[in-house]
Amino acid sequence: MRFAKGHGTGNDFVILPDPDGQLDLSAELAAALCDRHFGIGADGVLRVVRTAAAGPDADGQASEWFMDYWNSDGSIAEMCGNGVRVLVRYLLDEGLVEGPVVAVATRAGTRTVRAEPDGQFTVDMGAAVVLADGAVQAGDQRLVGLAITVGNPHVACMIQQPVAGVDLSEPIVLAPAELTTGANVEVIRTIGDREIEMRVHERGSGLTLSCGTGAVAAAVAAAVAAEEWPTGPGRPWTVHVPGGELAVTPSATASLLTGPAEIVAVGELTASWLAGLSPVGLSTV
Amino acid sequence: MRFAKGHGTGNDFVILPDPDGQLDLSAELAAALCDRHFGIGADGVLRVVRTAAAGPDADGQASEWFMDYWNSDGSIAEMCGNGVRVLVRYLLDEGLVEGPVVAVATRAGTRTVRAEPDGQFTVDMGAAVVLADGAVQAGDQRLVGLAITVGNPHVACMIQQPVAGVDLSEPIVLAPAELTTGANVEVIRTIGDREIEMRVHERGSGLTLSCGTGAVAAAVAAAVAAEEWPTGPGRPWTVHVPGGELAVTPSATASLLTGPAEIVAVGELTASWLAGLSPVGLSTV
Repeated sequence: MRFAKGHGTGNDFVILPDPDGQLDLSAELAAALCDRHFGIGADGVLRVVRTAAAGPDADGQASEWFMDYWNSDGSIAEMCGNGVRVLVRYLLDEGLVEGPVVAVATRAGTRTVRAEPDGQFTVDMGAAVVLADGAVQAGDQRLVGLAITVGNPHVACMIQQPVAGVDLSEPIVLAPAELTTGANVEVIRTIGDREIEMRVHERGSGLTLSCGTGAVAAAVAAAVAAEEWPTGPGRPWTVHVPGGELAVTPSATASLLTGPAEIVAVGELTASWLAGLSPVGLSTV
Repeated sequence: MRFAKGHGTGNDFVILPDPDGQLDLSAELAAALCDRHFGIGADGVLRVVRTAAAGPDADGQASEWFMDYWNSDGSIAEMCGNGVRVLVRYLLDEGLVEGPVVAVATRAGTRTVRAEPDGQFTVDMGAAVVLADGAVQAGDQRLVGLAITVGNPHVACMIQQPVAGVDLSEPIVLAPAELTTGANVEVIRTIGDREIEMRVHERGSGLTLSCGTGAVAAAVAAAVAAEEWPTGPGRPWTVHVPGGELAVTPSATASLLTGPAEIVAVGELTASWLAGLSPVGLSTV
């Protein structure tokens, strides 16, 4: 079984090329591949399958390729802003598409990715919507912010202190009421002209090095604070995340996310490893 | 640049085949390969080089292959009981040696590894020596144990409670005085006939899924507690570690360590990743 490993700002993926949809990817195999000690190790799996062979989740989408995204716990997800850039980089490197503009079918609908002349990739992340005021308990700090949806829910909190100093290990959403069962939480500080730093706690994943939708939510919160939302100048914000740097042009209709996408290695899983897969033995200390 | 990824009881390695010693492995490259988000991800790097091409560290050793072991922080280490099994598995899988007995040169001298009929591998880990009584502060618990050297220093503490319940996040060695600057710390509980469970905090690495020398030290402590050291029956102890199961026959002259060794994948690092290597950007949240 062939694979590649790639990442975008430290958000990393095992890529499984499966053009004809013949690979029997299970929750168990996805989790085993993502296991960082017993497998390859990644935040998620990107199965790359032709839309025509991808089944109902890709129905009616016109792009040639479908991104079948799995989380490291073996669950399925709709979209991933870092993953879709890495997937397009892989398709281009392998000569499977022609650039610079590549449409990718996802469970959240078709996303368009542009390969920029400087080697970065820009994704149309769709609409961002400010829902309500929000509040978060982060360690012993009570933070206020905005509830924002970028397809998935966020509470984005502008703060004055360096973001590295906030205890984001187990943030609790206090408001709005409909997000108290869980949301991604961002803390954001302005560090320059249209330049912010951001850390994120992802619902279900904890602290991560980067989160594409979180970067969009952070830029929306910064734009609101700068009183240029939703009718701002349409110029990008630089978003520093622990794993690197992203650029976001927030928009109520089509937010743009620009960032790097790297392919680290390509290879083949051994038959002995695939034969020995079992649900026991995954990493816990 | 070709590579493989493998593990022994969850202690995982990037293997770099370099038969003729032409690879310019640096601390920076080793750390980048081991980075779990921006690289392949592993506890260490095993460069596989012919002894004749390995330079002074391999001088005078008669085995064909040398294990050039690097920690994930880019430092060099002498030996690794899990790594040497994985390296021999790799050599056998690739047809580079004939088994079942394979000698491997290491910085700690030549180690002999036997491929067992059941697919496990047994390493002669050399002498284990009980040095003195020891004591450790583990969270709010004060534990007593034995200072033991298996080439590297350990304080191995027999306890009555399940080992999972001990706070091993930052154990402090209280005694003997010569180990208060640092040692590997094991907590060990007897769970059956010649059967123990063990967790380990490795000096410089923290909590790990498995540690070969730690398993030997744990079996020595258990043998002392069973009053069969150093003149015991020479039968193996089963050692349950978080990453699986090892068998150890402790000995004052030649302790034997038996366990699995898996090769997960083989592949090739991309030229673009190697070209983009830089000391910045390694994983921190």
